[in-house]
Amino acid sequence: MLNIVILGAGNVATHLFKAFETSESAKVIQVYNHRLESLSFFKNKTEVCNNINNLKDADLYLICLKDDVIEDYASQLKYKNTMIAHTSGSFPLLQNIEQSGVFYPLQSFSKFAELDYKNIPFCLESNTKSGIQLLKKLAKEVSKQVFEIDSKQRQTLHLAAVFVNNFSNHLYTIAEDICKKEDIPFDILKALILETANKIQTQSPKLAQTGPAVRQDFKTIDRHLSQISDEQIRRIYQLFTNSIIKKYE
Amino acid sequence: MLNIVILGAGNVATHLFKAFETSESAKVIQVYNHRLESLSFFKNKTEVCNNINNLKDADLYLICLKDDVIEDYASQLKYKNTMIAHTSGSFPLLQNIEQSGVFYPLQSFSKFAELDYKNIPFCLESNTKSGIQLLKKLAKEVSKQVFEIDSKQRQTLHLAAVFVNNFSNHLYTIAEDICKKEDIPFDILKALILETANKIQTQSPKLAQTGPAVRQDFKTIDRHLSQISDEQIRRIYQLFTNSIIKKYE
Repeated sequence: MLNIVILGAGNVATHLFKAFETSESAKVIQVYNHRLESLSFFKNKTEVCNNINNLKDADLYLICLKDDVIEDYASQLKYKNTMIAHTSGSFPLLQNIEQSGVFYPLQSFSKFAELDYKNIPFCLESNTKSGIQLLKKLAKEVSKQVFEIDSKQRQTLHLAAVFVNNFSNHLYTIAEDICKKEDIPFDILKALILETANKIQTQSPKLAQTGPAVRQDFKTIDRHLSQISDEQIRRIYQLFTNSIIKKYE
Repeated sequence: MLNIVILGAGNVATHLFKAFETSESAKVIQVYNHRLESLSFFKNKTEVCNNINNLKDADLYLICLKDDVIEDYASQLKYKNTMIAHTSGSFPLLQNIEQSGVFYPLQSFSKFAELDYKNIPFCLESNTKSGIQLLKKLAKEVSKQVFEIDSKQRQTLHLAAVFVNNFSNHLYTIAEDICKKEDIPFDILKALILETANKIQTQSPKLAQTGPAVRQDFKTIDRHLSQISDEQIRRIYQLFTNSIIKKYE
């Protein structure tokens, strides 16, 4: 049995805890957070603790905390002489730790959304062979998608994820605002949003591109621009249109 | 039985034909296109025709052609004294036609993608009451989502659709390019793309926003900007980040 102590009580900690619950060879034996109040979700499911000096011995300390404090917590755990891993998409592999690792689930976690962990890609890294083996075994307990990714690649992935996740979601927000102004229910767009994401599961997005920009349909582009009253939104329309035209010229 | 003649042989014509095939009260009795070669898909399924003077009598002429030629074809059909509708998201309701309509399926159609027509929103408009009744009956045969939308609203929807469909897809393309440069398989991002689109099916995108911009995490934003070598992509990153910060301030 692989004994895990999780540090943190946020979305990543909560979802990883849930994912490990179904595992037969890994067990979360303790969850730490500096505020005891944040640990209520875990309280009846495992041991909880808000004193860093009272951590149990474990095979893996999994730091699910903000980038700013990862280093600090890692240095406090160093004496444990066991695997210390973090779950950040952008923080580098911990240095000066005998066995350090990264266990990065590439997904956007909301506290209450139910997720199918089997389809979440886990991006792993370690400074030792046995470390990567341990993380791989653990990740495969949870997910079908397990990748060994170095720190530089992980930072690139994190950047790419901002484009497909944060920026796409902002496009949805802009569309919702555009609809609201004309009393159109945003619901009408939901099937299209899903189909857009579905289509590239089997086809390169480069080949899936449609719309007035890729057709160089300037009549429609000009009409669209005349429909947009918000200066910022018009800039986004213009920049995307130019970028698409340039890409497919 | 509602007898339909479809004009056009492109993606919209093909998918609407397929959707009507399952209907018990509507039947496509003929498909017209000026090039006979384009009609091979329909040839063994219904009558085909490339001479506009040989169109059969029908209850509905459905023009699934490019915006530029809709008016021209409509004027040639005028003498039929029956319902003439187009399927365009941006072209206005036809004028000077006794009974004109719009039958706009809000979806991005690829020729070969299988679609669940039941979930495609149909946006309808007509200049007569009986016209809107006819279109509604037809749309409900095919889809669960039927909306009455006027020309101005439809043009707004078409603009909003460009943001969620064309521009989101361009973001996916940018992410694919970013991954390629570091030999990272784009597949790793696919689950995240799907979850981003899934999340807003039940939650407003405004509330679903995550990432460094909404957190005003300037350390991460600066690092991301330093990772981007392409000038155009950096401009997109900057513009989105500013737009998100402004939206949530």
